[in-house]
Amino acid sequence: MGSPQGRIPELRKDSVTNRWVIFSPARAKRPSDFKSKSPTTTQTQQQQDCPFCLGHEHQCAPEIFRVPPSSGPHWKIRVIENLYPALSRTLADPSAQYPILNPNPNPNPNPNPNPGSGVKVLGGFGFHDVVIETPVHSVQLSDLSPQEVGEVLLAYKKRIEQLSTHDSIKFVQVFKNHGASAGASMSHSHSQIIALPVVPANVSARLDSMNGFFHETGKCSICEVGVEDLLIDESTHFFAIVPFAATFPFEIWIIPRHHSSHFHELDGAKIIPQLTVVAGFEIGTGCHINPVFPEDAAKVLREVQNSE
Amino acid sequence: MGSPQGRIPELRKDSVTNRWVIFSPARAKRPSDFKSKSPTTTQTQQQQDCPFCLGHEHQCAPEIFRVPPSSGPHWKIRVIENLYPALSRTLADPSAQYPILNPNPNPNPNPNPNPGSGVKVLGGFGFHDVVIETPVHSVQLSDLSPQEVGEVLLAYKKRIEQLSTHDSIKFVQVFKNHGASAGASMSHSHSQIIALPVVPANVSARLDSMNGFFHETGKCSICEVGVEDLLIDESTHFFAIVPFAATFPFEIWIIPRHHSSHFHELDGAKIIPQLTVVAGFEIGTGCHINPVFPEDAAKVLREVQNSE
Repeated sequence: MGSPQGRIPELRKDSVTNRWVIFSPARAKRPSDFKSKSPTTTQTQQQQDCPFCLGHEHQCAPEIFRVPPSSGPHWKIRVIENLYPALSRTLADPSAQYPILNPNPNPNPNPNPNPGSGVKVLGGFGFHDVVIETPVHSVQLSDLSPQEVGEVLLAYKKRIEQLSTHDSIKFVQVFKNHGASAGASMSHSHSQIIALPVVPANVSARLDSMNGFFHETGKCSICEVGVEDLLIDESTHFFAIVPFAATFPFEIWIIPRHHSSHFHELDGAKIIPQLTVVAGFEIGTGCHINPVFPEDAAKVLREVQNSE
Repeated sequence: MGSPQGRIPELRKDSVTNRWVIFSPARAKRPSDFKSKSPTTTQTQQQQDCPFCLGHEHQCAPEIFRVPPSSGPHWKIRVIENLYPALSRTLADPSAQYPILNPNPNPNPNPNPNPGSGVKVLGGFGFHDVVIETPVHSVQLSDLSPQEVGEVLLAYKKRIEQLSTHDSIKFVQVFKNHGASAGASMSHSHSQIIALPVVPANVSARLDSMNGFFHETGKCSICEVGVEDLLIDESTHFFAIVPFAATFPFEIWIIPRHHSSHFHELDGAKIIPQLTVVAGFEIGTGCHINPVFPEDAAKVLREVQNSE
């Protein structure tokens, strides 16, 4: 498959933690223009080397689509394959391609592509795409006009709709790492889309929790979060809050006023500034320590909003 | 309470994520001798400023005990209160001290100190201690003799036994952050103990998962993890492995051969080198991407072991 050490990616579920982990040797090999540049590297030098810049399209993995369509060299957004994907799109349906180990030895391994509790290994089938948000190296997402940001969101929506046509894709995550300390390896403004053959534990826990809240109270727990002292800003269709039990300092949720359960139907978004280090206690317990009370963070963020 | 902004710590559970978060304004104020020193600061200067060093005991929060007991200025280990605790030991039983909010308005708030699913806020009662592992600034845990490391583990055990006598303490986490990038704020070798009034989500999920595995297979999932290609080292009472679905590269589990369910009865330990950044995808899904296959990590770690 051309992967390092001849290995293809794999998903494994630990029977102690009951969580899926993606093993992806290719990820270790990806370059970083944050780490590899000396402090004297100029922006011009960075742009000359950057595969995401206009004119460097041939240095990238294949394009999926561009915006506007057929815009040729005048593209505004490109959705491309990730050159160092966490998962492989060339593997077929995971349950057909890969032996499934089962802690209960069973002469008829479960052929269901939706893995049950006994499944411990899946072939690393999935999609890992990059959304290049602008052709210009020095432009960040926050420099774009509201309409241009809207076009980026519509590119997400279009790609999610394409990915959701695959029967074995069970969950799609859109994410953007901004800055080296937040985990970005390339400084050219981009976001990523990973499509998984499993539903991650956090997502099913969140769905279970919301389901439980609805059965207990008859209400949607997302609709209940918009109390006044946590509100940052609001518009006709959305409102932004610091959540009541924010995991991270200055965490922001952007929530649509109308119920919807999928991002491509406008599910809302999270913004998580990486101001604290996730260390031993958080890794051990999953319980985070946040030094900033949400109502204090909301007050600061409202003031930033008002002073602009 | 002397906390910044006059606030006391608080635990909040989000009804969307169903996870407890500790809000602790005091944590924002703690100093760091990693961040605050200029590159020209010498080790001697660091030691002169370090409250964990021999002779600086008066700069620390109160001592709980020292090892050996009554060793005076010749102590080897000190267990002290954290000067910037995540939780407050001076608050009494949280359910008695703090109004409990319940999404189901109920004239009789639940007086049970073990919070049920409806509880959303608890007073930040708990303990946060520091174990100073050596009086000498330049000595790291790995510099200690096996017997001295054993004394540190016995200090954990003694303190956990003391903490477990409190009815409202539901879980105790021992953890050690080694190095600034792993979240340590002080370079003097130390570990920490946090005692919580709730059982964190990761812990109850792990217990549920192990319980499920036992009911499915009749076996203990921890006992099943010690397969040959994942083994790093073993002794009469313990073995060390890279777990089959390691969340982080070169993650190590040290497991006792005899079953036990509590750390102070030798539950085992995790070592997690912080080689990768936890970024948007991991925060969103809880599904981690590990670039190193566990059997490859185990091979490397076995070779390190053999070359010593």
